[in-house]
Amino acid sequence: MADFKEKVLNLHKKNTGKLDILSNVPLVTQNDLSMAYTPGVALPCLEIQKDITKAYDYTIKGKTVAIVTDGSAVLGLGNIGPEASLPVMEGKSALLNHFSGIQAFPIALKTQDPEKIIETIKLLEPNFSAIMLEDISAPNCVYIESRLQKELDIPVFHDDQHGTAIVVLAALINALKIVDKRIEDIKVVVTGLGAAGSAIIKLLHKLGVKEIYGYDLLGVVTKKKYSKYNFVIKQLIDDKILKYADESYDLETLLENKDVFIGVSAKNILKAHMIQKMNLDPIVFAMANPDPEILPDKAKEAGVRIIGTGRSDYPNQINNVLVFPGLMKGVLKSRIKTINDDIKIASAKAIAKMVPLKELSEENILPNIFNKDVVKEIEKAILKTLKKD
Amino acid sequence: MADFKEKVLNLHKKNTGKLDILSNVPLVTQNDLSMAYTPGVALPCLEIQKDITKAYDYTIKGKTVAIVTDGSAVLGLGNIGPEASLPVMEGKSALLNHFSGIQAFPIALKTQDPEKIIETIKLLEPNFSAIMLEDISAPNCVYIESRLQKELDIPVFHDDQHGTAIVVLAALINALKIVDKRIEDIKVVVTGLGAAGSAIIKLLHKLGVKEIYGYDLLGVVTKKKYSKYNFVIKQLIDDKILKYADESYDLETLLENKDVFIGVSAKNILKAHMIQKMNLDPIVFAMANPDPEILPDKAKEAGVRIIGTGRSDYPNQINNVLVFPGLMKGVLKSRIKTINDDIKIASAKAIAKMVPLKELSEENILPNIFNKDVVKEIEKAILKTLKKD
Repeated sequence: MADFKEKVLNLHKKNTGKLDILSNVPLVTQNDLSMAYTPGVALPCLEIQKDITKAYDYTIKGKTVAIVTDGSAVLGLGNIGPEASLPVMEGKSALLNHFSGIQAFPIALKTQDPEKIIETIKLLEPNFSAIMLEDISAPNCVYIESRLQKELDIPVFHDDQHGTAIVVLAALINALKIVDKRIEDIKVVVTGLGAAGSAIIKLLHKLGVKEIYGYDLLGVVTKKKYSKYNFVIKQLIDDKILKYADESYDLETLLENKDVFIGVSAKNILKAHMIQKMNLDPIVFAMANPDPEILPDKAKEAGVRIIGTGRSDYPNQINNVLVFPGLMKGVLKSRIKTINDDIKIASAKAIAKMVPLKELSEENILPNIFNKDVVKEIEKAILKTLKKD
Repeated sequence: MADFKEKVLNLHKKNTGKLDILSNVPLVTQNDLSMAYTPGVALPCLEIQKDITKAYDYTIKGKTVAIVTDGSAVLGLGNIGPEASLPVMEGKSALLNHFSGIQAFPIALKTQDPEKIIETIKLLEPNFSAIMLEDISAPNCVYIESRLQKELDIPVFHDDQHGTAIVVLAALINALKIVDKRIEDIKVVVTGLGAAGSAIIKLLHKLGVKEIYGYDLLGVVTKKKYSKYNFVIKQLIDDKILKYADESYDLETLLENKDVFIGVSAKNILKAHMIQKMNLDPIVFAMANPDPEILPDKAKEAGVRIIGTGRSDYPNQINNVLVFPGLMKGVLKSRIKTINDDIKIASAKAIAKMVPLKELSEENILPNIFNKDVVKEIEKAILKTLKKD
């Protein structure tokens, strides 16, 4: 472990961070300089002044995404502040670049005031093709995203919400093929009702799941409780997307006769006796990080048919990295302004399709995260979806 | 010319802008991912949370400068807005990277409100080692810089002001060796009293020039005129750095018995008959861009001993690119918070020294902008200056 720590710190120190911002033009002769800088540089400036969309062709705006955080909800580490969040943002930028070839610049803001975050991102708009929000605490992240979607001319994507929801959907689509249940028939319990939980619920509903139940630190969702403290969940109740109880009861009772458990909550909350109350062929996605709601071995012992986690050391790793490189590539290529539910569902289906039926098994419901074809297929699916509209 | 335009636009389009932001870590195996991303990435995060200065070691903050503009005064093009200014910012970033190896990210803000610019840059502070302000109109740029110098914990450098002042000083130091005049004895006229002009005046004073006169669109500086509209120039008058007249008169009269003309103003304002009023061995730096205050051939004809311009197609190109790569490298290496006058003067002297006495001539007062040793010498000079303090 000490050895791992040293290796990791050295990796981060070796090149002073995990990204390099490099000149890609020759600058060796006077002629080079006159083309990349004065006087030649005035020519693309004037073209953009005439037609602002030319910035996508002549500047890095056309290939660059901002990955923006306030450092308030970083990994499982919590509110560690902007500077300490930078390695995560750089990691995400490096992944995006490696898997999709598009480029990202990490921005950790020295404020956790939603209005200031919104204002700052709006002022940064000229420089980017899209904004990815990252590791901002709930419910601020939901509010910030929805404001920006209205007020920006470039797309905004909060990966913790929608990236997670899309990969969960992909996993669920394939898991249902194995247990031979229809999406319309299943009953789903989601534990953890923050950014990821609420986005998962919305997308499950959009795909046709009729019965979705919620549970978090406060227990089973009741209308009274959630009206008070969580405007996102309140909206889901009001829109009849999320079921609610009149009086609270425990998770064991909630899981009776349910088909699917989706956890984005806390370690070890799911126990064997609870699983035994679920319907035949239970599906469990236990994605709390780094310690899942139940460990895969225990889940299997308790009768779970298909178990997925966020971890790479067990089968069925349910990880956003399957989603955002392809999604952002499709978004940049199409220059769309809004990433709507159709695009999210098309992305989920494209990921699911990457596991051919003959390779599908209880231990293999998702493509490997290093499979570079996933990016291409998501991109294709997005472009196809947009053609239909 | 059409051919040049096509070549320049193609250069900008080929790679979608002039910079690439690339991952510099391996991401091919699960082990790679666990070091650059979860779970390993938590380790540098926690180190930075304990000691915020570790962000300089473990993240791109330690090697990255922001080049920030509002697009209000871009090259000679004027107020073309943020998007259209991006090619210039990228060009500057590419130059900085090419000549110094440090890295820069261009940021064009969608506001020209000084308070909003200041606020935004303060919120972006966690991501950068230093801020370079660029192509922001005067006097806003002076106000923004001075506010940020007080309110940021990282250094701020407005290149249009100080980069220009430093390279002018370097050129002047060497020109005076040729005409054998002492800095204390010369009388200097500066035309153009915006960002560059005021910074040149301050630095000339600091180096020991006793008589400095100003001239701009309003004519010769009088106390009454400047108190009204230019708080920077008013301050220079109040501090007895800049001479002023009681009543205005013309540039010809102002140039009587002066030794040096420094122009950061407008094309063709300097005429032969004015030069003839100057002292023996006139020095003229005519830096209006792209058309200087007087063309070198005409200046020589009129009796100018040493003429420099901003242009690469004449001898003695007085260009900021000689300054900012070395200066920013020294600043990043030393992690100083403030770029004071001692550092600016040390940089100017280091540049001047790059032309050995035996190579010094009327046509060769500055090193070639492609001479990479200039960066090293400025860096060394800065570190030496700081050791003395």
